[in-house]
Amino acid sequence: MTLDLEMMGTKARQAAYDLALLPTTKKNELLAKMAQALLENSAVICAANEKDLAQAKDLKASFVDRLRLDEDRIKEIANGLLQVKALPDPIGKIDTGWVNEAGLQIVKRRVPLGVVGMIYEARPNVTVDASGLCFKAGNAVILRGGKEALATNKKLVEILRAVLEANGLDPNIFQLITETSHHVAEKFMQLNGYIDVLIPRGSARLIQTVVQKATVPVIETGAGNCHVYVDQSADLQMALKIIENAKCQRPSVCNAAETLLVHQAVAEEFLPKVADTLGKYHVELRGDAKTCEILGDASVLADERDWDTEYNDYILAVRVVDSLTDAITHINTHNTKHSETIVTNDQTNAQRFLNEVDAACVYLNASTRFTDGFAFGLGAEIGISTQKLHARGPMGLEALTTTKYVITGNGQIRQ
Amino acid sequence: MTLDLEMMGTKARQAAYDLALLPTTKKNELLAKMAQALLENSAVICAANEKDLAQAKDLKASFVDRLRLDEDRIKEIANGLLQVKALPDPIGKIDTGWVNEAGLQIVKRRVPLGVVGMIYEARPNVTVDASGLCFKAGNAVILRGGKEALATNKKLVEILRAVLEANGLDPNIFQLITETSHHVAEKFMQLNGYIDVLIPRGSARLIQTVVQKATVPVIETGAGNCHVYVDQSADLQMALKIIENAKCQRPSVCNAAETLLVHQAVAEEFLPKVADTLGKYHVELRGDAKTCEILGDASVLADERDWDTEYNDYILAVRVVDSLTDAITHINTHNTKHSETIVTNDQTNAQRFLNEVDAACVYLNASTRFTDGFAFGLGAEIGISTQKLHARGPMGLEALTTTKYVITGNGQIRQ
Repeated sequence: MTLDLEMMGTKARQAAYDLALLPTTKKNELLAKMAQALLENSAVICAANEKDLAQAKDLKASFVDRLRLDEDRIKEIANGLLQVKALPDPIGKIDTGWVNEAGLQIVKRRVPLGVVGMIYEARPNVTVDASGLCFKAGNAVILRGGKEALATNKKLVEILRAVLEANGLDPNIFQLITETSHHVAEKFMQLNGYIDVLIPRGSARLIQTVVQKATVPVIETGAGNCHVYVDQSADLQMALKIIENAKCQRPSVCNAAETLLVHQAVAEEFLPKVADTLGKYHVELRGDAKTCEILGDASVLADERDWDTEYNDYILAVRVVDSLTDAITHINTHNTKHSETIVTNDQTNAQRFLNEVDAACVYLNASTRFTDGFAFGLGAEIGISTQKLHARGPMGLEALTTTKYVITGNGQIRQ
Repeated sequence: MTLDLEMMGTKARQAAYDLALLPTTKKNELLAKMAQALLENSAVICAANEKDLAQAKDLKASFVDRLRLDEDRIKEIANGLLQVKALPDPIGKIDTGWVNEAGLQIVKRRVPLGVVGMIYEARPNVTVDASGLCFKAGNAVILRGGKEALATNKKLVEILRAVLEANGLDPNIFQLITETSHHVAEKFMQLNGYIDVLIPRGSARLIQTVVQKATVPVIETGAGNCHVYVDQSADLQMALKIIENAKCQRPSVCNAAETLLVHQAVAEEFLPKVADTLGKYHVELRGDAKTCEILGDASVLADERDWDTEYNDYILAVRVVDSLTDAITHINTHNTKHSETIVTNDQTNAQRFLNEVDAACVYLNASTRFTDGFAFGLGAEIGISTQKLHARGPMGLEALTTTKYVITGNGQIRQ
């Protein structure tokens, strides 16, 4: 192994200490310069990307599409940096404060996390997006992207580092791991003391690998087995629009619905409408026995695995439930704690669902598709946390910070 | 293995869902009843404790002391539950909220974490303290205490569970792992999906084992290599009182000072006073060359390891530094990110220290001994977090909660 991860970690820590003290206007100035530099270097970025694409030509079309950069996409990525520039700086905010018994002033102040480790797949946009967000929140970042994007990532990071250097900042705020073996990735996940948090972004498999192998704290993101529950009292027209949107507007994303639960009292009326509407999108319905009884040929019989599957595709599991309680139990048993919605006009049932369903985001009469940083209004997101520690749901800039107690006295000692 | 950890986890999850809905008054009522039950069962608890003590009689005196319960200690433990009862309930608090572009009301509400796993040593008081705090924050808890306290822990948990059962609650809110092998402990640390967070409490070795082995999210607590820095402009009388308090008031705890840094301009005047004052407590001083030059026989020469050692004893490492910058660099290189203090009358230096030192708690002109939940005024604590994720510094009840986005609409779909 030629790569010295501890050395990278040490450099990142030092760079992070300097960056933590940088005022907001200076950070914003640099974000604008980075955006500018990406646009100016569009041609060389595309040239590097061509090398990666040449290697990847036998891979799946959707994979290659995510890997591909062109001038328009580079413009989008540069715009992303300008959006981050426009966000309020989370650093320095006082969350709370008080004076204790001994007369000490105790203030809880937002500070950067320090060094963030990003592990992701062959999506070069993540390289810049994550760097921009980490930078604005005052963190150094060590990036480990998918090996298929290595030439592109090298070029992108080289450009961002050059901007830092040209402006008198430590370029080690951004570092890329250029040795993409699993062995190095594993060591990266165990760099305790050098990295404050690891954020994996990508497939469920990637995220699970990181959760299993890492000894550094991880924020688990992404997997979404989301449910739409249509209650007895639901406005069925509204319910139809919501399931259509939640399933079909963009089936490949984590906040798309994967299972529809329908109260038995409205199943016979509602399910044929669902089959009709989703039929236009060629959605495959996988129903329980009752659903199949109602829908006949329009549905195939689901098996137990369907309740736990995130299809990310034009497939929907459907189940008829006897009661709200059964719906809540089904969701809490099978969901990934991401986003769940109830469609109802019954206030009591709405409150029960919102209180009892265990998920980062619980909705009343709205599509699950709103679970993301932009739709929420957070401005941008580094991911959607499906764990309960530190951050839950869409993570904006504040999720990339921690707090520090600043305590001022005049000689107090403990009695 | 006779123990079914998954089954315990499933039971805990179910119990947690019920507990999450319990109103504050009911939780408080039950905490009072648990305190009462402990007092009433004092004799049987002591009898169980006698069995553990009989097995432990050849172990270190300090170990046996921590294991021992008597009527007074049981009273203290019961009082601890009443203190938790008196704390405000963190559940249900709305942290923030807004209406987004689409007209959805988005509210971020405090909810319990769910299931907390506690791993700790042979200190039976932790069994009750942790149970009380988790209960008040609406969490089920699975306890894994040191094997030397097994008989005592069994009895304590039996008493607490009986109170729950007698009051119509699920006793599986509190569960004890009664098989204390390392194999079972390791499996417990990897119960992803069943446990939402693991909190280890105890020695640095225990905590490091959990950090290394766990795949469940961990909150790292405890280790404290804390520094007192005496600046050039310090009030030396104040500085003397602070180092005396930080080192000697209770040397065995994590917020005690382990290293004294002194600006070279005041070292000759200050260090003999330190030797004099700490000499009364027979504190061993381990100094750098400059310190030894000033103190002669009153100090032994430190080696590099001393800067990284948490003595938890009447030993203090001492170093003369050339500047504030050197002091900050020393601290950021060697500290465990716990608690650090500067003694100074220089406002600029004070601000630099508070801004640039990387620790959960940074102090100006006060003893590091204030870093704990009670001294802070949080009422009680589940531990002191030395990591940056989720919670940092003394963790009160809020650290045992997470948030949930509750989103209400009237048919909104994503465009």
